[in-house]
Amino acid sequence: MMKQERAARTRQLLIRSAAETFERQGFTRATLADISSSAGVSTGALHFHFANKDALASTVEATAATTLRRAAHGVRQPGANALQRLTGASHALADRLRHDVVARAGFRLSCGDGPHRPGLDLRGEWFECIRHLLTEADHEHLLAEGVSRQDVAAAIAAATTGFEVLGRTDPNWLSPASLSSFWHLILPRLATAEALAALDLPTGDPLARPRAVEIWERKN
Amino acid sequence: MMKQERAARTRQLLIRSAAETFERQGFTRATLADISSSAGVSTGALHFHFANKDALASTVEATAATTLRRAAHGVRQPGANALQRLTGASHALADRLRHDVVARAGFRLSCGDGPHRPGLDLRGEWFECIRHLLTEADHEHLLAEGVSRQDVAAAIAAATTGFEVLGRTDPNWLSPASLSSFWHLILPRLATAEALAALDLPTGDPLARPRAVEIWERKN
Repeated sequence: MMKQERAARTRQLLIRSAAETFERQGFTRATLADISSSAGVSTGALHFHFANKDALASTVEATAATTLRRAAHGVRQPGANALQRLTGASHALADRLRHDVVARAGFRLSCGDGPHRPGLDLRGEWFECIRHLLTEADHEHLLAEGVSRQDVAAAIAAATTGFEVLGRTDPNWLSPASLSSFWHLILPRLATAEALAALDLPTGDPLARPRAVEIWERKN
Repeated sequence: MMKQERAARTRQLLIRSAAETFERQGFTRATLADISSSAGVSTGALHFHFANKDALASTVEATAATTLRRAAHGVRQPGANALQRLTGASHALADRLRHDVVARAGFRLSCGDGPHRPGLDLRGEWFECIRHLLTEADHEHLLAEGVSRQDVAAAIAAATTGFEVLGRTDPNWLSPASLSSFWHLILPRLATAEALAALDLPTGDPLARPRAVEIWERKN
């Protein structure tokens, strides 16, 4: 392996290890020694790439931003209407948060829950995306009469925030089945009958339900 | 003031100061020195009441549990149907989370986001309350046909989790206006027409909207 390739690979290993360590221990408790040893590199090698823990956190955030923006934009196929793109973007983001630890840790860091001062606001970007696509849906005459677009945007923002937060401890909150259940419930309130009939929602594995929901099912 | 009264008052001051400090700085960064000085008492007085930071956190959690359980049960007026009690409980809990820093900090500690090992699971208790009241609503024939009760419970759980998390930085996510908008949107999907007509939802101050929603309104 060329020296440059090896350096790039070490950097990737450190970013992933940092994300895993932040998720497991929280930003404050994570140490550079934990991060370098989990990555299988020396602390010297870590310091060659990153000045300190904040620099690592900012890189995790920036990497998550690239992944999540690409996921959300990837579903903007030509021809798909705005509601199709909105539901598609929510599924694409949930998929990345569920399967990619760097996306998950970076999103969380950017929310500023902890002591790391985030450079980005990925939750705010997602809310802006919801607002934008609902405005487009309105222009495309896809929205039902008599429902406030702001109320719809706020409900989608709140519920998807819940999926993200609950998905940190039970990834099935972010499963296609979980998201589609939400959309099946709410879409008839916000879309016209024609728009609703034209929508294509992924069903996903019906067994990939959050544990809390499984327990409710067993109890009844 | 009697010695006993003074001790009880100091204890209350310390619980409130701990809650404020945990909310401001996070559990890990909060120090006992910060907590005692904000409460205006000596560290010696703090140690008389609480062995360590974990003991303080557990007391904040337990105090929050008492407040929130009382709020949720307070709306169980005889005669009110199960959907009325469900929406009422959500408003009562949101009101406490919005206005009572001990309830807010204790709820958050009990969610186990941080390094404090929670003794309670207040979010889990709320989800159980949702499930229970939807089961009662079903027995009372208040639920619309063809909608899965589990999907409804999951959507309410996710959205209210979002309100709580977003309310940490913008309390207006927990305002009566914000909650009622959500219920007005979702109830027609889950309640029969008769049940819907009988419901009484607080409207609240329409100006107490989350900042993100206000910005959306100005942009359109």
